[in-house]
Order: sequence, then C-alpha cells, then structure tokens
Amino acid sequence: MEELRIFAPATVANLSCGFDVLGCCLESVGDEMTVRKNDLGKLQITKITGQDLPLEVGQNVAGVAVQALLDEFGSDEGFDIEIHKKIKPGSGIGSSAASSAGAVYAVNKLLGEPFDKTQLISFAMQGELLASGNAHADNVAPALMGGFSLVRSYCPLEVLALPVPEELRMVILHPLIEIKTRDSRSIIRQTVSLKSAINQWGNLASFISALYTSDYDLLGRSLVDEIVEPVRSILIPYFRELKTLSLECGALGFGISGSGPAVFAICKGDEVAINLKEEINTFYHQKGIDFELHVSKINKEGVKVL
Amino acid sequence: MEELRIFAPATVANLSCGFDVLGCCLESVGDEMTVRKNDLGKLQITKITGQDLPLEVGQNVAGVAVQALLDEFGSDEGFDIEIHKKIKPGSGIGSSAASSAGAVYAVNKLLGEPFDKTQLISFAMQGELLASGNAHADNVAPALMGGFSLVRSYCPLEVLALPVPEELRMVILHPLIEIKTRDSRSIIRQTVSLKSAINQWGNLASFISALYTSDYDLLGRSLVDEIVEPVRSILIPYFRELKTLSLECGALGFGISGSGPAVFAICKGDEVAINLKEEINTFYHQKGIDFELHVSKINKEGVKVL
Repeated sequence: MEELRIFAPATVANLSCGFDVLGCCLESVGDEMTVRKNDLGKLQITKITGQDLPLEVGQNVAGVAVQALLDEFGSDEGFDIEIHKKIKPGSGIGSSAASSAGAVYAVNKLLGEPFDKTQLISFAMQGELLASGNAHADNVAPALMGGFSLVRSYCPLEVLALPVPEELRMVILHPLIEIKTRDSRSIIRQTVSLKSAINQWGNLASFISALYTSDYDLLGRSLVDEIVEPVRSILIPYFRELKTLSLECGALGFGISGSGPAVFAICKGDEVAINLKEEINTFYHQKGIDFELHVSKINKEGVKVL
Repeated sequence: MEELRIFAPATVANLSCGFDVLGCCLESVGDEMTVRKNDLGKLQITKITGQDLPLEVGQNVAGVAVQALLDEFGSDEGFDIEIHKKIKPGSGIGSSAASSAGAVYAVNKLLGEPFDKTQLISFAMQGELLASGNAHADNVAPALMGGFSLVRSYCPLEVLALPVPEELRMVILHPLIEIKTRDSRSIIRQTVSLKSAINQWGNLASFISALYTSDYDLLGRSLVDEIVEPVRSILIPYFRELKTLSLECGALGFGISGSGPAVFAICKGDEVAINLKEEINTFYHQKGIDFELHVSKINKEGVKVL
C-alpha cells in the first residue's frame, strides 16, 4: 500500500456538561486527505485546497502530528500529504483535529499499523497543541474512534468509547465569524463554585447513563452547562434566541460546539433535525450573518479510507 | 395491614468522584424498625433502642420525615414508630437516612402506597435536613431504591438508578470517633479549580460507564476524588495508610463514606473483601482506636419488609 485517500470527520467537543472531556464525531462534515509514501525520506505537505494554511511541516497541524508519530516510530520513510479542507479553521467543529487525526491515521496504516488508537490520539494531540496552545484530546479522540469519546485521564492518556443511541442527529450552525480557540479559552474563569461543579458532574453522569440506556429525554435534560456556556455564549451572535428556537422545535439540547462559534442542537430523528435546520436557516438569514448549516448523524467509525 | 417490621439499610454517599450526587446501598448493615397504625390520630416515636436519640417527633429524623409525608397526604392517621438502631449516628454510613427512609417507606406502605419512590425520597430528605442542616438525597435515595443512585437534580428532584456489577463488595471501616456532618461540610472550600472539577467529572463519567459495562478495573481507576478527599481525609485516623493497605490488598478503590469517619474499600469478589477486612482489622487493632468493620454486598433492593 503506497497511497491512501481518507475522510477526516468534523467533531463536536466540549459537549455541554462534558466540557474538556466529551466529544462526538460527525458523519456528513469533514475533510478529504491523500497521503502517499515518497522516496525523499522526508515528510512534506504537498498541497492544501480550500483554505490558506501553511505548507511547512512544523507549522501545519497534520505535519507536526505525523512528525510526532515518525519520531516515535524511528522511521526514515517519507510521506506526501495533500489536504482538501472542507471544515473551516476556527469553526469550533474540529478543523485542526480532522487534519491531525486524518494524517496520523493514514500514515499509521501505510506503515503497517504499528500504533494503536490511543497512541494515534496522543500524536494527533500535538497538532492541537500547535493550533490552540493546548494538547486537548476531545476532538482528535472522536475523530479517530468515532461515536462519543470520553477523555478520563491525560496522564496516562485514557479515552473511553461510549455507545451511540441510533436516532441521535446533530444540527450544526457555524456563523462565519472567527473565534480563536486560544482566545475563547482565555475568557473562562479558572475557578468555579463547588455547587456549579457538582451540578455539572451530576449532569454529565446522567448524560453517560442516557447514552447507555438510549434515554433521549434524560439525555436532553442532562445537556446543561452552567460553567462555560454562560461565558462563551456571549461571543456567539443570537445564542439565546437559537437555543430557544431549537428547544421549541423539539431539540433535546443545545450548546456550543468546541470553543465556538459553531453551535449544535442534538435531536432525536431526522424529522426534528431537518425541520430545525430549516427554522435556523430562516432565522439566521434575517440577521445578515453569513453561516453554514449541517445536519449529521453521529459517525460511529471515525476517520475512514475512501 | 396494620403493622410492618422493616430493614432500613446503611448507605455510602459522596462516593469519591461522585461527591454529593452518588451513593450506594449496603446489604449487611442496617437498622430495624416497626411501624404500626394507632388509634390516637397522631404520630409518635414510641421506642428507640441501641442509641440515645430524641423521641419527640419534631426532633427525630424519622418523625419529621413521616410528618412531611402525612402533611402532603392530608391524613389524620396515627402511627407508632419503633426504631432499633444498629447504625451509629455520626458514622458516615447513613444512620439518619436509614431512619428517615425506613419510616417513610413503612408509613407509605401502610397507607396503601399513595407516593412513589421519588416522593418518598423528598420526604426522607426532611430528616436529612434536621440531621445535618442540608437536605441531601444521596443517602436516602439509595436507602429507598437500592443499588447505586445518582442525584441528577434537586429542583425538580430527579434520581437515577444505575446498574450494579455482580461481584462488587464493600469493606466498611467505622472508626468510633464522631464527626458531625455539619462540621465535616464546613471545612470544604466552596470554590474549586476548573482543572480539578474537570478531572472529577471525567472520573465520575468513567465510573458510570464502568457500572454499565461491569468494567471493574475502570471502576477502580475512576474512583478518584481530588476535591473533597484531600481535605476531609485529615479528620480520619490513618486514612493514607488504610488506603495504601487496601489498594495493596487488591481493592479497586478506597474513599471516605459520606462525610466520614467511616471509610470504604470497594472490591471485586468475596475473597479480596474478606482478606482485606482481616488486614484492616489487624492494622487498626494496633492503633488503639475502637472501630467497627463490615463486609457487604451492594443491596439492590433498599428498604424491605422483614
């Protein structure tokens, strides 16, 4: 095997009550990448379409992620990476994670799969470190594993795969304004009240239970974030109105995707999701802000070969 | 039905990472109570054995809990309550909760079960309010429901029943020193670092996953409390040594039960639990502190008629 073309999915991290530990993988939004062995004994980013991103390996999230893998492997194999971005950087749906996760997945496959999923996550996290100053795993883990991923621990890295209730759908609105992850992190207070923290972990625990029991109503009731959402939502135009609209249209829950500006509504079934997409489309058009809007199943597979 | 004799079980609340939201019910430790209708049209505590506790209805946790139930029911039925305490007050294994939960369970049964489990929990919480100044549910809920109970929300009250892996055993050490719940609460800081809170909710989420998958090792790794245990453990003689001993003897995890001074080791299987009980017995005897020591299965049923 000398070349692979892959789909690198978008992801929703910081899932409400699961701030910093819970993410999920999307099916209908993602980048394409082509990775092939070269004879030059070096790693290079040969082409990027769709976005203006650096080709220098050390400045590109896919480059640094793969370099971390190759350094660990001790290989002098060379690879060419082409990235066809469809996820916009700064969107909040894991643009950098898709590139990092996709690249390490493909290179690992071309090397005969010397590394397991957890190791790939840790390499891909190097891309996140470059992108945001923080080597977080809650985008790259679901991008690589599919479904819902829970990051229990960073030291050592331990990520759990959680069950996916069949009828879950995500409606994703991406207002085309840019919020840098780095900036979005800086507005969060580094201490929280014990009371809020207790509410948050009670809700997250209930959300996990709801995934195991496919209890959609419980899942919705548990999607409460009283720590980060109140602060970050002020950066997102019409957040409150969007949340109200979504819940009125039957969404189970609504929140900020990653560090925003994308937001998600989680729904049961196609009908609610498609109807909500139309309602949000109408509402946001009136506001004069450019945006992208997606409906997606939860992607159970993660990165895959095309 | 004019009279009921019941078993009112001990419980372990504040289960490590599940501080304030997660508790479980014990099988081999608990009080006995007898509740019977009387012709006086009033509620009275007629007898208490095993402990010196107030007989006045308004000063007794079982009294106030049942009174809350009767007020809601609008009944002028009278009841006599006898309490045979085997759980010591101030132990940290839900002494007040056993009395409150047992009493409301029995009276509800004698009235033809007008109230459901969630309503009974809210009545029993009035006993907790009297005992500790805080109407918490994480002892009375597992006492009434059995198994592991997760308190998602207080307003409205919502408690989830979680699955119980078959081989779980609890070793409970109760050093015979008294720590009042009220005092034990007062030493907890009311703000926490976001980082610790994130670790805590990652661990609790993993613990919930472990209950659903009967993953005993994950359950053990997840039993980490970096918020409350570091503060409260200083009130418990030889806490660190007991924890080290328990983990060396193969316990999955170790923590403070309720607000202490009782501590628990959670184990897989009888053999580990019984061996650990002997080791703790030997260790604590040398220290010259009186204590009680129990091994128990997780009680899946909760309060029951004898």
